[in-house]
Amino acid sequence: MNEETLDELITKNKVYCSMGANASYIPALASVNPNQLGVSLYHIGSKELISAGDASVKFAIESISKVPALLLAIEDNGLTTVLEHINTEATGFTFNSPLNMEINHDKHPLNPFVNIGAIETTSLIKGDSPDTRFSRLLTFVKEICHDESISLNEEIYESESKTGDINRSLAYYLKGNHMLSGDVESILEVYFKQCSLNVTTINIAMMASVLGNKGVKPWDNKRLISEESATLVKSVMTTAGLYDESGEFSAHVGIPGKSGVGGGLMGVAPNKYGIGVFSPPLDKSGNSLAGMKLLKDVVIDLQLNIFS
Amino acid sequence: MNEETLDELITKNKVYCSMGANASYIPALASVNPNQLGVSLYHIGSKELISAGDASVKFAIESISKVPALLLAIEDNGLTTVLEHINTEATGFTFNSPLNMEINHDKHPLNPFVNIGAIETTSLIKGDSPDTRFSRLLTFVKEICHDESISLNEEIYESESKTGDINRSLAYYLKGNHMLSGDVESILEVYFKQCSLNVTTINIAMMASVLGNKGVKPWDNKRLISEESATLVKSVMTTAGLYDESGEFSAHVGIPGKSGVGGGLMGVAPNKYGIGVFSPPLDKSGNSLAGMKLLKDVVIDLQLNIFS
Amino acid sequence: MNEETLDELITKNKVYCSMGANASYIPALASVNPNQLGVSLYHIGSKELISAGDASVKFAIESISKVPALLLAIEDNGLTTVLEHINTEATGFTFNSPLNMEINHDKHPLNPFVNIGAIETTSLIKGDSPDTRFSRLLTFVKEICHDESISLNEEIYESESKTGDINRSLAYYLKGNHMLSGDVESILEVYFKQCSLNVTTINIAMMASVLGNKGVKPWDNKRLISEESATLVKSVMTTAGLYDESGEFSAHVGIPGKSGVGGGLMGVAPNKYGIGVFSPPLDKSGNSLAGMKLLKDVVIDLQLNIFS
Amino acid sequence: MNEETLDELITKNKVYCSMGANASYIPALASVNPNQLGVSLYHIGSKELISAGDASVKFAIESISKVPALLLAIEDNGLTTVLEHINTEATGFTFNSPLNMEINHDKHPLNPFVNIGAIETTSLIKGDSPDTRFSRLLTFVKEICHDESISLNEEIYESESKTGDINRSLAYYLKGNHMLSGDVESILEVYFKQCSLNVTTINIAMMASVLGNKGVKPWDNKRLISEESATLVKSVMTTAGLYDESGEFSAHVGIPGKSGVGGGLMGVAPNKYGIGVFSPPLDKSGNSLAGMKLLKDVVIDLQLNIFS
Repeated sequence: MNEETLDELITKNKVYCSMGANASYIPALASVNPNQLGVSLYHIGSKELISAGDASVKFAIESISKVPALLLAIEDNGLTTVLEHINTEATGFTFNSPLNMEINHDKHPLNPFVNIGAIETTSLIKGDSPDTRFSRLLTFVKEICHDESISLNEEIYESESKTGDINRSLAYYLKGNHMLSGDVESILEVYFKQCSLNVTTINIAMMASVLGNKGVKPWDNKRLISEESATLVKSVMTTAGLYDESGEFSAHVGIPGKSGVGGGLMGVAPNKYGIGVFSPPLDKSGNSLAGMKLLKDVVIDLQLNIFS
Repeated sequence: MNEETLDELITKNKVYCSMGANASYIPALASVNPNQLGVSLYHIGSKELISAGDASVKFAIESISKVPALLLAIEDNGLTTVLEHINTEATGFTFNSPLNMEINHDKHPLNPFVNIGAIETTSLIKGDSPDTRFSRLLTFVKEICHDESISLNEEIYESESKTGDINRSLAYYLKGNHMLSGDVESILEVYFKQCSLNVTTINIAMMASVLGNKGVKPWDNKRLISEESATLVKSVMTTAGLYDESGEFSAHVGIPGKSGVGGGLMGVAPNKYGIGVFSPPLDKSGNSLAGMKLLKDVVIDLQLNIFS
Repeated sequence: MNEETLDELITKNKVYCSMGANASYIPALASVNPNQLGVSLYHIGSKELISAGDASVKFAIESISKVPALLLAIEDNGLTTVLEHINTEATGFTFNSPLNMEINHDKHPLNPFVNIGAIETTSLIKGDSPDTRFSRLLTFVKEICHDESISLNEEIYESESKTGDINRSLAYYLKGNHMLSGDVESILEVYFKQCSLNVTTINIAMMASVLGNKGVKPWDNKRLISEESATLVKSVMTTAGLYDESGEFSAHVGIPGKSGVGGGLMGVAPNKYGIGVFSPPLDKSGNSLAGMKLLKDVVIDLQLNIFS
Repeated sequence: MNEETLDELITKNKVYCSMGANASYIPALASVNPNQLGVSLYHIGSKELISAGDASVKFAIESISKVPALLLAIEDNGLTTVLEHINTEATGFTFNSPLNMEINHDKHPLNPFVNIGAIETTSLIKGDSPDTRFSRLLTFVKEICHDESISLNEEIYESESKTGDINRSLAYYLKGNHMLSGDVESILEVYFKQCSLNVTTINIAMMASVLGNKGVKPWDNKRLISEESATLVKSVMTTAGLYDESGEFSAHVGIPGKSGVGGGLMGVAPNKYGIGVFSPPLDKSGNSLAGMKLLKDVVIDLQLNIFS
């Protein structure tokens, strides 16, 4: 694949931008230009990066941040301990619902990629203050994305914090059911901040390439996370990375993915590519509509489907 | 891997036979000797089959039959039509519950591997009588398992039919919600029969190898199903093949799998191996306990994890 | 109250006929003239019956039949035994849903007035064949309604039976969970027949008056059911008689009531009145819209609210 | 009934104290002497108060406070406005669950006597600060209970506030779904305080007598609340006053009731008696076990069942 082909895929799929709708719960997401579509591919073997479309546009990482937060929680506590707090099972419901837990009387959030599990995950990141914990996470994100310039979008953060009552409800649900240690507001501060980082598709592609390269950063051949952790996270991305559309994404795209309501989408082709996509308009499950279409085309073109 | 190594894995994992419990809802399953563990691996490239333990024991295929039924339904109707009737999403609940559908007001069963979706799938198999439809399915199973001797276990079938009231409830639920065409009792007759086929781990390994070989039977290089169909089914096995334990299996074993309450377990290592496992005692989700342990060891030993 | 006042209430409330919709799942209900409103009041003390509007129109009793079926089941088995099979709790969901049972893992239907509990109730009526059981129930209905001419509407029965798949699903759910004795289709035959009786508001008022008179038929001073049974049934009518609108009806009308999708509505003013109402168009919960409005006016006018 | 008979009922029912368990979520409730049973009856007509057993023991009002909070919210806003915020329907689930709302996508809490509806109710009490709102509620409680000495139990309040995370979760759920106006922590402060008032069975009996006397205080013949409000509240107590045991209580006791986890139980016999009961050990639904048994005996002895 070359940039020319990528450009064609951008052109082909841009029409889907008009078929979804930006996240509307905060003005800073609602007001983003919806007619954007960008993609970056980082090839693990050749260390070559190619991009097309709006690949340099900064957007809010939102739920894609659940991946580095989980990786850091695993580094901090070990995989076993993390899996004592959070399961790796699909919930069958939307991202912000406690329904399955409440019905099944689960003792743990079902997976780290629905909000209630992500809040639990963030609570496991070590540090003696919210500032320290967020600072450690930001450092980790910069390293896994190979970009020192990644920073907090203060406007997004203020809005997330102000409108985050459903997340507060989920956090207090965990706390009230004795599943969460620490101060709820402090945990939510880190959680809202992690969702408010500004990234580009290039950042996302680099992060994906570390997962795809068994935990070793391709650009400097240094291990950042354990192979076991990278493998597990790719598995959970497959079964639960796109909320209640994870099974559809798995069936129709066929690589581990993780979406965010900022319009970002991360795809991992194990041992081959890290992929970052961005297009703000979402489908009803909260996943980037044009982004998924484009990613599907890339997967087909490069024969990346892991089930094939 | 050779048979000696397989033998060692049988010995190592046989201890888990005592930690689960046979399916107990029908005598014919409850009375099976629980202290059995068998495995067969069919290597797609070399066309070599190796087995260990109780690989020649016949057992009831049960829910593993949902795979060939889905494949035949796709052959009969095309993938698009089948996906208009059944989704490919995890439900978050046990195999015999309509909970998620009822809560989410879904118009379709969430996936073909929970009972309600499997009944829907079976209803799509073509034929002008239950006998014809079952006969066509049996022929297909014989072909994909490369074994003309596969036959109905009448005792199991009688029991399944007699005790199948929850399945009847699910079928009438579909019918009453206008999601099922045809006569409910006729559809259930085929469904109960498909669950009551006697198979061995060798049969299961051969079936898995066709899925692993993109739809082409490795033993005669003839295509049986489309590549698209084989890919999709492996994806759905990954997200929904082990009921409400699918995510755990995916995270800890890492290949597409499908279980049955007869103790069977099918694993597919794309382009490498078809794997059949058998051990009757089940865990609380209804999956073979020793079978999953053994399969995990095989996957690690042969480095088959698709997320690695 | 005299017939003139009743006539005025008919005129006043007839406007609501156009704001609801007939039950549409069978033609025989859908095609009933929607612009009908009738009412009958039987005064327990004076044994005086007054009626207005379409009081002599025959309509399908539907779910109001759950009351005499419960009364007969209690006569047949004793109250204690019946309450070992069915609880007296509101479900929080619509009349034909198993949701609450499935979520709470209940061992019994929550109450006898949702369909799943009504099917259970009907299964407790004694008799060695469906014909005998239905015949006994019909005899009981004739007696409690003081009308020998009550008979089965064959057209309604055929339709109910033909389209009753959700009820079949509920019955097999009970059977599969070991909560139902006897043959499902036989039980459903009686159930569908009991729903298909033709009655008038006069019939309903007479039945209500027996409940209101502590189980003694006012017209001949003979006890038909126990006082304990009459009291319990009025209580369950209050908490669960109008499906998921029971609490609203209790709060805004304030007497024990039971509705049917044929447009019938029974109200009991203890020790004062038996009331029958009829108007086919239903609200979204399946209760007669104009019927409830009219009944509310009657209750206010006669100061019958039991909570006042 | 005289005090001698009441004494006998205390003696008879005290055995049930050992069959339940005190609320255990806060030490101040867990450590209460479980072997207590008290009752007070206030006769509306004769203005006579009789008591027996532990009638002068102060206990935490807990959920019984939901009744005066609702009454004050109605006085402050009118019944119509309150019913635009809160329904009057049973939920089918335990007192602290959002399940029914979440499943049915309800726009309002289902009733004012489950916690989520009670929090909503408290938010409707007028006042420009939490202190003012609580002060107004306390004044109202003193008046309806005819006892100026009623005061806050600071130890209970501190514990309720400290351990109230599930209530916080419910409040933020309402807030996040745009159903709650005002600051969540301020609303919860009033809510936790209202639950922490110390009362006696005499207080409860007096409050009940105002409800039973159509809103007029029997002791001074002055109206405190509207008749409409008193009638509605008695109805909602009947359908939802004892959580997911309301239907059972209605069927087996048969008067409007409201329980609290402090062991209190209020019963209203319209136009006859206000009744207060106290016994700390609770059944699994959170209702006073000996209290319900005693109240049932009182209702039978005095023939108070409103469905009879």
